[in-house]
Amino acid sequence: MHPPENIVNSAAASARDKLLFTPGPLTTSLSVKQAMLHDAGSWHFEFNALVASIRDRLLSIAQLSRDGGWEAILLQGSGTYGVEAVFQTCVPRAGKVAVLTNGAYGNRMAQMLTQAAIDHVVLHTAENKPVEPEALAALLVADKAITHVAMVHCETTTGILNPVQAVGQLARSHRKLFIVDAMSSFGAIPIDFKHCGIDFLISSPNKCLESVPGFCFILCQRQTLLACQDQSRSLSLDLVDQLKGFDRTGQFRYTPPTHAILGLDQALKEFEAEGGVAARGARYRANHDVLCAGLAELGLRPYLDAGVQSYIITAFPFPADSNFSFDNFYRSLSERGFIIYPGKLTQVNTFRIGTIGRIFPTDIQQLVYAIRATLQDILRTP
Amino acid sequence: MHPPENIVNSAAASARDKLLFTPGPLTTSLSVKQAMLHDAGSWHFEFNALVASIRDRLLSIAQLSRDGGWEAILLQGSGTYGVEAVFQTCVPRAGKVAVLTNGAYGNRMAQMLTQAAIDHVVLHTAENKPVEPEALAALLVADKAITHVAMVHCETTTGILNPVQAVGQLARSHRKLFIVDAMSSFGAIPIDFKHCGIDFLISSPNKCLESVPGFCFILCQRQTLLACQDQSRSLSLDLVDQLKGFDRTGQFRYTPPTHAILGLDQALKEFEAEGGVAARGARYRANHDVLCAGLAELGLRPYLDAGVQSYIITAFPFPADSNFSFDNFYRSLSERGFIIYPGKLTQVNTFRIGTIGRIFPTDIQQLVYAIRATLQDILRTP
Repeated sequence: MHPPENIVNSAAASARDKLLFTPGPLTTSLSVKQAMLHDAGSWHFEFNALVASIRDRLLSIAQLSRDGGWEAILLQGSGTYGVEAVFQTCVPRAGKVAVLTNGAYGNRMAQMLTQAAIDHVVLHTAENKPVEPEALAALLVADKAITHVAMVHCETTTGILNPVQAVGQLARSHRKLFIVDAMSSFGAIPIDFKHCGIDFLISSPNKCLESVPGFCFILCQRQTLLACQDQSRSLSLDLVDQLKGFDRTGQFRYTPPTHAILGLDQALKEFEAEGGVAARGARYRANHDVLCAGLAELGLRPYLDAGVQSYIITAFPFPADSNFSFDNFYRSLSERGFIIYPGKLTQVNTFRIGTIGRIFPTDIQQLVYAIRATLQDILRTP
Repeated sequence: MHPPENIVNSAAASARDKLLFTPGPLTTSLSVKQAMLHDAGSWHFEFNALVASIRDRLLSIAQLSRDGGWEAILLQGSGTYGVEAVFQTCVPRAGKVAVLTNGAYGNRMAQMLTQAAIDHVVLHTAENKPVEPEALAALLVADKAITHVAMVHCETTTGILNPVQAVGQLARSHRKLFIVDAMSSFGAIPIDFKHCGIDFLISSPNKCLESVPGFCFILCQRQTLLACQDQSRSLSLDLVDQLKGFDRTGQFRYTPPTHAILGLDQALKEFEAEGGVAARGARYRANHDVLCAGLAELGLRPYLDAGVQSYIITAFPFPADSNFSFDNFYRSLSERGFIIYPGKLTQVNTFRIGTIGRIFPTDIQQLVYAIRATLQDILRTP
């Protein structure tokens, strides 16, 4: 699987940029970045038409549509802002959120709920185990105050895939609203909104859509969101007001990251040209397979069992060698032109390799060679 | 005053981009946009060093320094997020804010305080009059609950300049914290922190610093901010946590708009090359003078008295001709390659012309010619 010829690979064309094996910001195509070589007026009708088109195309990736009652809300800020905006806007004063977590991003949900003084309960699972629908089932029977259920689809801490459909169906059967952080999975792992019973999904352009950071987006039913009017404790993060701004004028309420929006327009064209979710998922899976096969030969195996491991990002425990230091490893790979990602686990020392972005199996193979050479250098094995 | 030769003018080089006469997002140099043709790792030490350098350089524009106890906090999102972040983080539960307003951006402060359930009182002035220190003096005597004073430096609704020094000295003498939205003035209108007694100043890269939108920044004393620990009602907008993140790792807590940060690095180089605040202010003043002289010949005079009018943006009442329609005027100018800005006044119909961004008096002269031709077309004057 080689880069499509009509898409310029940034590694080749933008002269010695290091390749990013990170969960985003990640390596984007040069053509996405070149789309940002223009200044758009945020009030201008041509720009507003582009924003409307992007909102429709984001919905269509999820096989949703405005005609079907759905909306894509673009919001300035990082993905975390989007998750918090859903909580700040959509959980009423008397609401209570059940958070299922097995990593840093689930834990962050609990943290933002605490800070916003929104009642919640947290169901923890070990970092190497998927979150547990059974625990939620018991909780929903025991605690009738719960109004919302929230979880992370692909927990970037480990790359673990969580059972969004089982949790969602449970939430739906108990008539709870279901909030999914699909930051690092949307666009490369199919998500069936209907079967999963998702009410609010949050993601970001700088993950599997391979664009640049600057804003996030929330997919939700229009009526479900409008029912949350006057609930938000924050003006900037008020999603109802943001939707009404788009309704009224086609514009963002406040200054949008115009260049990042031009970037996503181009990234969506390349996403469609590649073949959508299926093709992008297949490329990332191929990246992941090359990575795991290559590192296995070096004695490095993923932290997670293969059955729960996504092809988005993979955590590897440090080599069992007292000469290994992550800092040396990272810097040596950086000098070779490859940027990897540190671990985020609480119990085990790991490094992480992202397999998303405009990178291809041939790039992964180069990374594997670099890791081999680096380990030989820093471990001084004979 | 022509474009410096070492800086490529985007109007010429990026092939037919329309020039933006807007208060931001605005026209930036091609070289600023070209700086975004790279993907930086948000965890990478080289990127972190750049972030640290940008924070120092923002302080130095205000003649402040970290050694002097000051910090520049970068925050993802638009400028409005930055203003709200100061309120959400820095006003304690028992706090109360006095807001001085004479336009939409001052009113927005009141709106975000209402939504965050932060106690406040609003001092309104007519849109064509500067805010009134005398009214604040009376209020501070009458209402001892007030802890913070907030105002907009250059109110973009009209382009009016507000008396930041008189208000600040009053706030200081009553031992109130002073918050200034300097979104559209920072970098082109000198602001003396010491004489103005400013505790928190909020601005944005996509105004007089001539970079792209995607984040904002807050200048404040480190100890003043750290005293606000655990007050923020929002995780995303928690400025103490954001500062501690920079302290701990040199990184943003959450995904930064990496490309926009590369853009600001380049924009700051061009800002320094041009000659800093004095030179940039002089160019904008020249832009404003050419604009006012040219439009006066067409019978169009600014809404504000010259004594309170800034050289950032200028509001002009519609021509007194029943054939005039803003929509026709705007579209006709757009077809000629010039994007202007609609009015935002509540009582008078105006259009606005921004004179900031990478535009020069020669560009303003072209705009004046286009306005003359457009008015001849749409007003059908003999």
